[in-house]
Amino acid sequence: MASLAKLLFLSCLIDVRCKGLRTTFQHTDDSTCGYGSCNPVKDDMINVHVVPHTHDDVGWLSTVDQYYYEQVQYILDSVIPELEKDPSKRFIYVEIAFFARWYREQDDATMHTVQRLVDEGRLEFILGGWSMNDEGATHYNAIIDQHSLGFEFLRETFGKCGKPRVGWQIDTFGHSREQASIFARFGFDSLFFGRLDYQDKAFRQSHTTMEMVWRGSPNNLGVQADIFTGVLPNLYQPPAGFCFDITCSDTPFVDDPRLHDVNVEERVDAFLSAMADQAKQYTTNHLITTMGSDFQYQAAHNWFLNLDKLIKYVNARQSNGSKVNLLYSTPSCYTYHVNKAGKTYTTKEDDFFPYAHHEHAFMTGYYSSRPALKGYVRRANNFLQVVKQLDALAMLEDTDNSTFNINILAEAMGVAQHHDAVSGTERQAVANDYAERLANGITEAQKVYNDAVKKLAARNGNAVLEHKFCTLLNISVCPITEHENQFMVTVYNPIARPGLEYVHLPVSHDQTVSFKVWGPDGQEVTSELIPITPGTFRIPERKNSTAKYELVFQAELVPLGYSTYTVTSNKVIQKAAVNKKPLMQGADVVLQNEFISVAFDGTTGALKNMTNLEKQISIDVTQSFNFYNAFGGNNSQPEFQASGAYMFRPNGSSIPVTMGSGHARLSSRSYFVQGEVVQEVYQEFSPWVTQSVRLYNHHRFVQFHWTVGPIPITDGQGKEVVSVFKTSLGNKKTFYTDSNGREVLKRQLNYRETWPFNNTEPIAGNYFPVNSRIFIRDEAKQVQFTVLTDRSEGGTSLREGEVELMVHRRLLYMDGAAINEALNETGLDGKGLIVRGSHYVMLDPISSAAAGHRDLGERLFMAPALSFSLPTDTPGANNAWSGVRQALPDNVHLLTLQQYPSAGPAPSETQPFLLRLEHFYEKGEDPVLSQPATVNLQDLFSAFDVTGAIELTLGGDMVLSDLNRLAWNYPHEDETRRKTDSTLRFESEVTGKITTIDDQFIVTLYPMEIRTFQINVRPVEM
Amino acid sequence: MASLAKLLFLSCLIDVRCKGLRTTFQHTDDSTCGYGSCNPVKDDMINVHVVPHTHDDVGWLSTVDQYYYEQVQYILDSVIPELEKDPSKRFIYVEIAFFARWYREQDDATMHTVQRLVDEGRLEFILGGWSMNDEGATHYNAIIDQHSLGFEFLRETFGKCGKPRVGWQIDTFGHSREQASIFARFGFDSLFFGRLDYQDKAFRQSHTTMEMVWRGSPNNLGVQADIFTGVLPNLYQPPAGFCFDITCSDTPFVDDPRLHDVNVEERVDAFLSAMADQAKQYTTNHLITTMGSDFQYQAAHNWFLNLDKLIKYVNARQSNGSKVNLLYSTPSCYTYHVNKAGKTYTTKEDDFFPYAHHEHAFMTGYYSSRPALKGYVRRANNFLQVVKQLDALAMLEDTDNSTFNINILAEAMGVAQHHDAVSGTERQAVANDYAERLANGITEAQKVYNDAVKKLAARNGNAVLEHKFCTLLNISVCPITEHENQFMVTVYNPIARPGLEYVHLPVSHDQTVSFKVWGPDGQEVTSELIPITPGTFRIPERKNSTAKYELVFQAELVPLGYSTYTVTSNKVIQKAAVNKKPLMQGADVVLQNEFISVAFDGTTGALKNMTNLEKQISIDVTQSFNFYNAFGGNNSQPEFQASGAYMFRPNGSSIPVTMGSGHARLSSRSYFVQGEVVQEVYQEFSPWVTQSVRLYNHHRFVQFHWTVGPIPITDGQGKEVVSVFKTSLGNKKTFYTDSNGREVLKRQLNYRETWPFNNTEPIAGNYFPVNSRIFIRDEAKQVQFTVLTDRSEGGTSLREGEVELMVHRRLLYMDGAAINEALNETGLDGKGLIVRGSHYVMLDPISSAAAGHRDLGERLFMAPALSFSLPTDTPGANNAWSGVRQALPDNVHLLTLQQYPSAGPAPSETQPFLLRLEHFYEKGEDPVLSQPATVNLQDLFSAFDVTGAIELTLGGDMVLSDLNRLAWNYPHEDETRRKTDSTLRFESEVTGKITTIDDQFIVTLYPMEIRTFQINVRPVEM
Repeated sequence: MASLAKLLFLSCLIDVRCKGLRTTFQHTDDSTCGYGSCNPVKDDMINVHVVPHTHDDVGWLSTVDQYYYEQVQYILDSVIPELEKDPSKRFIYVEIAFFARWYREQDDATMHTVQRLVDEGRLEFILGGWSMNDEGATHYNAIIDQHSLGFEFLRETFGKCGKPRVGWQIDTFGHSREQASIFARFGFDSLFFGRLDYQDKAFRQSHTTMEMVWRGSPNNLGVQADIFTGVLPNLYQPPAGFCFDITCSDTPFVDDPRLHDVNVEERVDAFLSAMADQAKQYTTNHLITTMGSDFQYQAAHNWFLNLDKLIKYVNARQSNGSKVNLLYSTPSCYTYHVNKAGKTYTTKEDDFFPYAHHEHAFMTGYYSSRPALKGYVRRANNFLQVVKQLDALAMLEDTDNSTFNINILAEAMGVAQHHDAVSGTERQAVANDYAERLANGITEAQKVYNDAVKKLAARNGNAVLEHKFCTLLNISVCPITEHENQFMVTVYNPIARPGLEYVHLPVSHDQTVSFKVWGPDGQEVTSELIPITPGTFRIPERKNSTAKYELVFQAELVPLGYSTYTVTSNKVIQKAAVNKKPLMQGADVVLQNEFISVAFDGTTGALKNMTNLEKQISIDVTQSFNFYNAFGGNNSQPEFQASGAYMFRPNGSSIPVTMGSGHARLSSRSYFVQGEVVQEVYQEFSPWVTQSVRLYNHHRFVQFHWTVGPIPITDGQGKEVVSVFKTSLGNKKTFYTDSNGREVLKRQLNYRETWPFNNTEPIAGNYFPVNSRIFIRDEAKQVQFTVLTDRSEGGTSLREGEVELMVHRRLLYMDGAAINEALNETGLDGKGLIVRGSHYVMLDPISSAAAGHRDLGERLFMAPALSFSLPTDTPGANNAWSGVRQALPDNVHLLTLQQYPSAGPAPSETQPFLLRLEHFYEKGEDPVLSQPATVNLQDLFSAFDVTGAIELTLGGDMVLSDLNRLAWNYPHEDETRRKTDSTLRFESEVTGKITTIDDQFIVTLYPMEIRTFQINVRPVEM
Repeated sequence: MASLAKLLFLSCLIDVRCKGLRTTFQHTDDSTCGYGSCNPVKDDMINVHVVPHTHDDVGWLSTVDQYYYEQVQYILDSVIPELEKDPSKRFIYVEIAFFARWYREQDDATMHTVQRLVDEGRLEFILGGWSMNDEGATHYNAIIDQHSLGFEFLRETFGKCGKPRVGWQIDTFGHSREQASIFARFGFDSLFFGRLDYQDKAFRQSHTTMEMVWRGSPNNLGVQADIFTGVLPNLYQPPAGFCFDITCSDTPFVDDPRLHDVNVEERVDAFLSAMADQAKQYTTNHLITTMGSDFQYQAAHNWFLNLDKLIKYVNARQSNGSKVNLLYSTPSCYTYHVNKAGKTYTTKEDDFFPYAHHEHAFMTGYYSSRPALKGYVRRANNFLQVVKQLDALAMLEDTDNSTFNINILAEAMGVAQHHDAVSGTERQAVANDYAERLANGITEAQKVYNDAVKKLAARNGNAVLEHKFCTLLNISVCPITEHENQFMVTVYNPIARPGLEYVHLPVSHDQTVSFKVWGPDGQEVTSELIPITPGTFRIPERKNSTAKYELVFQAELVPLGYSTYTVTSNKVIQKAAVNKKPLMQGADVVLQNEFISVAFDGTTGALKNMTNLEKQISIDVTQSFNFYNAFGGNNSQPEFQASGAYMFRPNGSSIPVTMGSGHARLSSRSYFVQGEVVQEVYQEFSPWVTQSVRLYNHHRFVQFHWTVGPIPITDGQGKEVVSVFKTSLGNKKTFYTDSNGREVLKRQLNYRETWPFNNTEPIAGNYFPVNSRIFIRDEAKQVQFTVLTDRSEGGTSLREGEVELMVHRRLLYMDGAAINEALNETGLDGKGLIVRGSHYVMLDPISSAAAGHRDLGERLFMAPALSFSLPTDTPGANNAWSGVRQALPDNVHLLTLQQYPSAGPAPSETQPFLLRLEHFYEKGEDPVLSQPATVNLQDLFSAFDVTGAIELTLGGDMVLSDLNRLAWNYPHEDETRRKTDSTLRFESEVTGKITTIDDQFIVTLYPMEIRTFQINVRPVEM
């Protein structure tokens, strides 16, 4: 059966005829994996856990598929026979994107061998994500998804012995607290990494705090988000001199006395000396030594042959009184033994950002590197969620190929989360490959969207339309809307609550055509034309578009459903009026709706003031685009460190972008439009930096829609462009940034929470990842100024009242990593990439700010999907449908709704879906919304009936009640406080267990909690 | 039994208790190796023989043992499992120095697996030498020995399936005709190599003569020395783009349609295109493609995985009409199929020297690189032969550890023959390692010498002495002779004919001591003191010696035996007279004995005239040391080619070495001594070039004993030093050089025999290897001027009457190979290596010249061995013994006499010895000595009785009558002529067979013939 399931899964990945059954979570084999399979240790000795491993980047200098064929296939091919030869040997494998590629190419005999090795704990999966995701530029939704994708492969293929128990972020460039929290909730017993700030590492080495308990959500989730965390001693390399990979030049063991250069005693001495040093930094009689590195073990025999000798000769010293014992091990076996030692650990409650490896090498550049790719990854995630939902809501069958098609995008997203993908630290050709994968995935997913929406429409009696997509709407390109006289726009809302969306559609009219927009109920909707900005026309990707205007209208969003709007056009004699006026006309220009007003200086064109009309808060605020000249250097010593794809090292303070020297004002092409639906100020800061500031009706934010590039480099200077808001608020060197789009961390200038920080890079050393939002607070005024982003960016607040976000960078020097290319994105026409994005600005009382930015934050990464059709009918009524019977509470997010990727349902049978619900407020953020929320699963969906549910760990690969994480000794006195908040709830937390769903299918969600379920569903009787 | 023999052999290599029986030559297993084990071909297609191979240098950039541990162990470890997995796979292994190291480290199971793979022809040994020997700087004695060492390992370990059938000189820098001849007489069916002159290659490619029959001894041995020879298409690399080794960056086959970059059709097209090109250059429907390179297959799987795909996808095209068929094959299987095709081939009768790979890259520098190492290798061979003989003559038993100790030197010599060892093209550290190995081997062999000479002395009633050795006699250092008042000198003559040797012994007397020398018969022998030359005192290695004089006396050499001389010293009142006079005293200085006189100019000190008194031939002849400034360059293009370890590229003509600018005469320290035993002129050309010209009584040659170095480089110029003889002879641009110390080849300036040669390097392009001798002839005067060397040197005759030999080189630039070090030997004190050697000059009628240089040539590489003892008795009578009952004929050389290395004899039993006898004259060289010679084996040795004999192939690994070489079609009409010379003899040659020894044990030897026997011997009853 296991083998059958495996084969079914494999065929599901590749075969349109995929059908199959989800295997149960109750794995009944009697395999010997788990902590019981660890090799024995010697309690009276220092046990050195020799961990053979390979670190296989899912793309970096080469693409993921190039790496697979050029390196990874050989690694797995050569490791398996080595493991087979000797039951004491261990190997860990990490990146499932590679493992799955390899496994499906194997013959039955090899598959069975691998299954046995996994069952016996000899081959162990660590981490188990599709990739080892980046932590500085990723979003929690994608992190969870990419791990679930890997976990699902492992569970389907190997059952419980495939389940990873350890987080393994050995190469990521700093570490987010949300990642630790997610790992804990996956059920991991530990987390290991290699990179941390060099000062932090030195401090920990000298204070014996290389191992700790990291509290991933100290204010919300408590112990369930705590995880034992170890800093590896040598990054993830072997001890110096002990790299025995074929690519290394360290001397192998020479132990044939008949040959020259016999070195056994000398090598043993050196190893014992290295272990003695390491032992000083760690607290137990267990040491971990990583034996491997990037793409090593292509010739696994070279490694194992010498490790065998290392173990043999070092252990042979025991007969001479040595107290060092080597054994093949894994990170989980090391964890197990360290845990058994029962030491008490310090805790950490902040994160490991930023990461510097010397005084001028702060890896804070990658927070912003390749902003276009970062944006595309966020949009692809959005569409992936849309399509997963629609696939589930429509209960598409496998004959529709939906699982296969969705997986193409899901795998592309898994790859894109890699720490040299969305991070922007890969070569240009590889970045192109990531984008191509996402584009391919989106194209395939569009088919599923079409199938699902058509199936739903047919079932609901709506018009069954063929849907097309306009993926270039962000640059105002859409052939259908530009060329058709009549068309339909379907707006799918992946949020299970209602909302408003302002749809922008490029149209090619010459002002002798008038447009009308009809809602799903057949009623006309207010619409208007606004000019496409001059800044848009310089984007080379627009070359085939003739559109000069955008039609804008307000769409009502159906909870977890779609609504279809019809657009018609007619020749008119009189031109449509567009109320476009020069921006710098002397008097200030004010955009205003019922909630907010923003004023622009009538002389300079600059932002001047922002007012929350409802709360009567008004601040002075300017906004400008500045740039840093990038430090160039050859990296040969710390002072010659260059700014590059990883590093940010500005050469001096930032300089405003202007029209030219001495220009304190914008280009005269700047203008403003005050429409009925949207009000817009168009600012032209320079020929390569423009911005539309937009205020929509009924929205509580102002959108700053910027277009930056090509960054000029004719002066031989790389540049890093920032948008700087200068407010009149007093934030006292403190600001806040989110962690992977979820919880918010407090940041302080030139300060680290756990060690005395000496900041040698006053700008780069204060940059932090902004995955979704950054804000400053004036505690005296109780005012919060919040900026949300549409992608990950680096951000900071360097001076009082300021918020700074880096939007684009173009660099001419390498920063010392092997990448061997400067981060110089040249774009379609070779002149330099133009990037377009948005900042969303809110001004609120601190007490109600969360309600604004939490809601908007959700809507930004789960934006509506638009599709376009040609009408087959007259504008019909009731062209809308919702997949839920009632909206979710305002503080609950439908994080995941999907069919299992591994098996599509057989029609009309009960089948399992994966569901995640999230309370997306932190404790105490909002008096109402931070309260617990309840959802009745049986009452939620209109598309299907829920017949059963079982709660799973966050990764979806284990029944939650089966989870039994290792317990650690560390101070967590604040549990007491938390208990008083919600007694019953947090009682159970202390045990590390969460009760499963109750009989009534009512789920209670506490702040920041994500609960994961397998729900069994069957179609609703129509 | 095979396994037992293997284990015995292995233990023999390492174990003092080695005993065992020589396995018979009749291998009776029913293994399937041989041409019958080749994979099937398709007769109607082009068959591409895919030959997986690795080229493992026995030292080069790293030492042999470093290479073993750092690379080679992994190659064999990883290839064997790949072969096991698939019966169609083939692999060839070449260098037995490595294979033997590996094999003896394996467990029984692996040994059996390997045995099976060899038995089935899946693992095939090609070449089978201990190393792939150099051809430009090696001596035939060492070439044969190093192959026999490998062959013996293979025969003992694998039986007949281990026998190599193919010569494989894929990397050597030019190819000697003697090597081809030796290979043919090993029984090889073919020879393949990669490197030949670029013009030659182009010519052969366009004339479809990449394959030929090379006649290794067209004038002497005829067809038995002919061998089918193929130039490999791509050096020894894979076709461009098809290197699938882990160290290569060619794109692997990407054949999973689910991944990006699938390239199957494109790769197949490229391969077919390469094969179509190759097919144009070869004549049969078989093509060979070498799939491997230096130290490849450490991760054999990478190669085989992609070769499997290459074969699969190319052959799949056959279903679409492709007529190309790929198969795993070996060079021998390729040979077999080419032979079956029955084409007719052209012949080649000269050699492949010099080798140029572009117009300024003539690899003629290595003929002279590292002259000290080249000299040491020649001396080590001499001592190895001495010790092998003594071990056999004394019939030392294995309890004496003799086999083991001799093998240490034999293996060191095997390694030293490698094409980056004696060639001088290795790194300095590696050169040091070769020298250390030889020194270790000599030290071990000295023990055997001692044991043997003591055993023989005891048996013969001579004084049983403890022998010590003075390995620095060449620089006049010997602690015993310097410090003892009385000592004994044992002179062992490894030639089975009598002779004269002039013994030089450094003594530390202050001229108040007189020495007497007593012969083995107790009679006093004439002796004299001569001063150690000033040039000797600048040698830093002499720093512990206080000797200022050398005692010289004439020793009578016993055929294949020893004689012991006793030296006593006594205080005297009167100083011994040393007749030392300034050289430049006005009148010419003449040295003269009964055969020869040489005159030196009394003004300049230079050589002036030489006269053969017996034949009344007198010529003007000067001799000088010149140097070339070496071309420096970065090798980035042909014109920037530098002179280096491989290349010789002089920058202009040579410049005389002088005492300084304007000095046309030698230093005033030059002098001459006219002693009773030796007459000597000491010439000081410069502070770094000195020379002793010596004339001994009764010798027909003049010795030019030069000391060169440190070569000055303070002017930033590398230099290459030559000794130039300018004679009054007219040689018409023709000169003669030997091939590996045996047959002599005619050379002509700026001419190649087989293609129209365009010489772009007028000096380097006319350099040829001089392994033992060079001569010029004045055909009009019928006079020959011959120079013999004591080691391999490069030589030429650039102008009429000249002979030029390169004695030392010191270079400051690399010449483009990976060696990454300039050939700048700095010597013991870091100031630059001083090298000392000799040229031996003869002047004769052409008709009698061979008698002189053949005899002297033999005596130079088989010089007497000296050992020293302290007397335990009064000077005894009859301290001499000969191992032969009668001397061999004057034209027969005892090339090999040894116990088999693999098994020592059990006492008193009949046991097998290896014997080689050589007729060392060429046909027609001498009216008498070029006649056939006969030897009665039963009548030859006095040390033991010969009870049986069987003739073997030259390599000693096969009964000659079992040999059945493949027959080839090629013109060899000269056989007819040869038949008339010696009808019966050459009748049998034509069949490729030689009759075995007759019942009377009488062996007839024809010119240049070497006959190899296993003789069964038993101790003589005493």
